[in-house]
Amino acid sequence: MRWQGLIQQYREYLPVTNETPRLSLNEGNTPLLPLHTLSEQLGIEMYVKIEGANPTGSFKDRGMVMAVAKAVEEGSKTVICASTGNTSAAAAAYAARAGIRCIIVIPEGKIAMGKLAQAVMYGAEIISIEGNFDQALKIVRALSESSPITLVNSVNPYRIEGQKTAAFEICVQLGGTAPDVLAIPVGNAGNITAYWKGFKEYNERHKTGLPEMHGFEAEGSAAIVRNQIIENPETVATAIRIGNPASWISAVKAAEESNGKIDEVSDSEILEAYKLLARNEGVFAEPGSCASIAGIIKQVKSGEIKKGSKVVAVLTGNGLKDPNIAIEASSIKPVLLPCDEKVIYEHIRGAVLHEV
Amino acid sequence: MRWQGLIQQYREYLPVTNETPRLSLNEGNTPLLPLHTLSEQLGIEMYVKIEGANPTGSFKDRGMVMAVAKAVEEGSKTVICASTGNTSAAAAAYAARAGIRCIIVIPEGKIAMGKLAQAVMYGAEIISIEGNFDQALKIVRALSESSPITLVNSVNPYRIEGQKTAAFEICVQLGGTAPDVLAIPVGNAGNITAYWKGFKEYNERHKTGLPEMHGFEAEGSAAIVRNQIIENPETVATAIRIGNPASWISAVKAAEESNGKIDEVSDSEILEAYKLLARNEGVFAEPGSCASIAGIIKQVKSGEIKKGSKVVAVLTGNGLKDPNIAIEASSIKPVLLPCDEKVIYEHIRGAVLHEV
Repeated sequence: MRWQGLIQQYREYLPVTNETPRLSLNEGNTPLLPLHTLSEQLGIEMYVKIEGANPTGSFKDRGMVMAVAKAVEEGSKTVICASTGNTSAAAAAYAARAGIRCIIVIPEGKIAMGKLAQAVMYGAEIISIEGNFDQALKIVRALSESSPITLVNSVNPYRIEGQKTAAFEICVQLGGTAPDVLAIPVGNAGNITAYWKGFKEYNERHKTGLPEMHGFEAEGSAAIVRNQIIENPETVATAIRIGNPASWISAVKAAEESNGKIDEVSDSEILEAYKLLARNEGVFAEPGSCASIAGIIKQVKSGEIKKGSKVVAVLTGNGLKDPNIAIEASSIKPVLLPCDEKVIYEHIRGAVLHEV
Repeated sequence: MRWQGLIQQYREYLPVTNETPRLSLNEGNTPLLPLHTLSEQLGIEMYVKIEGANPTGSFKDRGMVMAVAKAVEEGSKTVICASTGNTSAAAAAYAARAGIRCIIVIPEGKIAMGKLAQAVMYGAEIISIEGNFDQALKIVRALSESSPITLVNSVNPYRIEGQKTAAFEICVQLGGTAPDVLAIPVGNAGNITAYWKGFKEYNERHKTGLPEMHGFEAEGSAAIVRNQIIENPETVATAIRIGNPASWISAVKAAEESNGKIDEVSDSEILEAYKLLARNEGVFAEPGSCASIAGIIKQVKSGEIKKGSKVVAVLTGNGLKDPNIAIEASSIKPVLLPCDEKVIYEHIRGAVLHEV
């Protein structure tokens, strides 16, 4: 009756044993929402998979519930990760739920307010180091190898296993078939890898068919598209600002095997999609998430996505994760008026007349 | 197969006609999560209904989808509300989804960052007035009476209709029975009114039984408990900082009819519950939401909630709505260390030894 989370729901598809704890914050079961306005404008049948509805507000919860459950199963009492973002929130929340320690190592001064608030609230211990992200990652790897601490960064293989379940849900939500195209932001490239694995496994059992996998990097960190490591990646889409993706090879494979493509979108295309999604459809997602929407718009125009296609865009994180960027991105500002009904009505009427 | 939102799911229970648009952002279907640690500590069977998983991050979406759908059905092209918080985000999102205008009137300088970001992103027009909240409310009422603009503040009767659906979901999620106790924060008192209506209606058709309704006001705005209007309500729980609840009488009736109670909790009890929920259970909710958790802790101690009871606490909003308060409330701060594995390991080990 009650959704009990991924480990319970999809145990047959996951590396779960009788000893794996049924850890859950009721992750998964996220909405698949049709986008009426954009579908009509683009001439496709378009949906968004809203992963920001997960417990900590991003898709990372799917992988983290598996990683932390397996850490507990293996007797670990501490998990560690290097992260400036959604990974830290997810790790901290599941460690709290499991009653174990969580240590987060971050480069000094590089974390968004909403995300830090989460890690802090969930009781994680946060160590800020005098170094960059790569150095933080090197240190947590070394610590996990030399001490009884489990690394839950993306190198942890259980993360991909948990993340693949979103593909299962999409097939169920579409009534037992895969979409024609799955559009997804690409940063570290683990998620496109996970979805492709999920679609293939679900298709084997349920004959759902397979989608084309269309991944989208941000122009300023488009390592896969350019086929070179980007030393100093820069993009407004911080969640996918990664210059040397951990799952590079498997992402390329997913695109090739599925007859899809890894493509890039510019920051202005991302911000345009970010605003359009909120204003026209009522959906507020992180800028990084909107690379998938920007990519669809680009590829419908270029003909790479055919008219009439059934397209699902993955929105990886909740817009509330980074409210400041929303306010910066918006041209709408509050108007200050005196407390007078007539003045306010004239303003409202004027705004309408002005628009017409 | 796919959850299609409240109007589609519960149309038999709602004032929905063939002309009502099937407006939805996939609101509802929110998790009911068992709290293992707290249940054990308190000797009860405790769950939280996580309303922060709704599309704009609060329970307001349930009522707003109905209010905006009915406005569209009645031919309205503009909705208006006075709100400094979750109501404005919900109104803006559903108006965007429906393709109509949304005007939000706020008292100058009184709105949390996350909530303003949402209204702005969803494209609402925000008018800040030189006056307080009551004056803003008076003006939007007057405007809606003198012009073709629909008021979607809580006086709109469709709001309660939409909100009652959360009670239906709880009964379904508990396998067809109501809980013994429903614990809920009380601000404007519309939500406790809605849940009680929902439980009664669902019980008539499905014989689920009825819960005791336990409502909790914040001490600094406990108008119902004190039986007097609070002129200047003050509490850290901004979402329930209301000194003259609109649904006062019906809230008292819900408590009386159900053999429940309207009670109060202090700010320090609320903040304690807020931190405990995140650290021990991995759930991050708005401070206002945590009045329900604080209330349960208080009433289990006093014996007003019996050991062994099945208790559902409503968490009305997502913690990400107000990240600043999380950081202020927390005693955990990042530790700055040099980029040196040994130093970091010694720090981690030291912290453990220190705890033991």
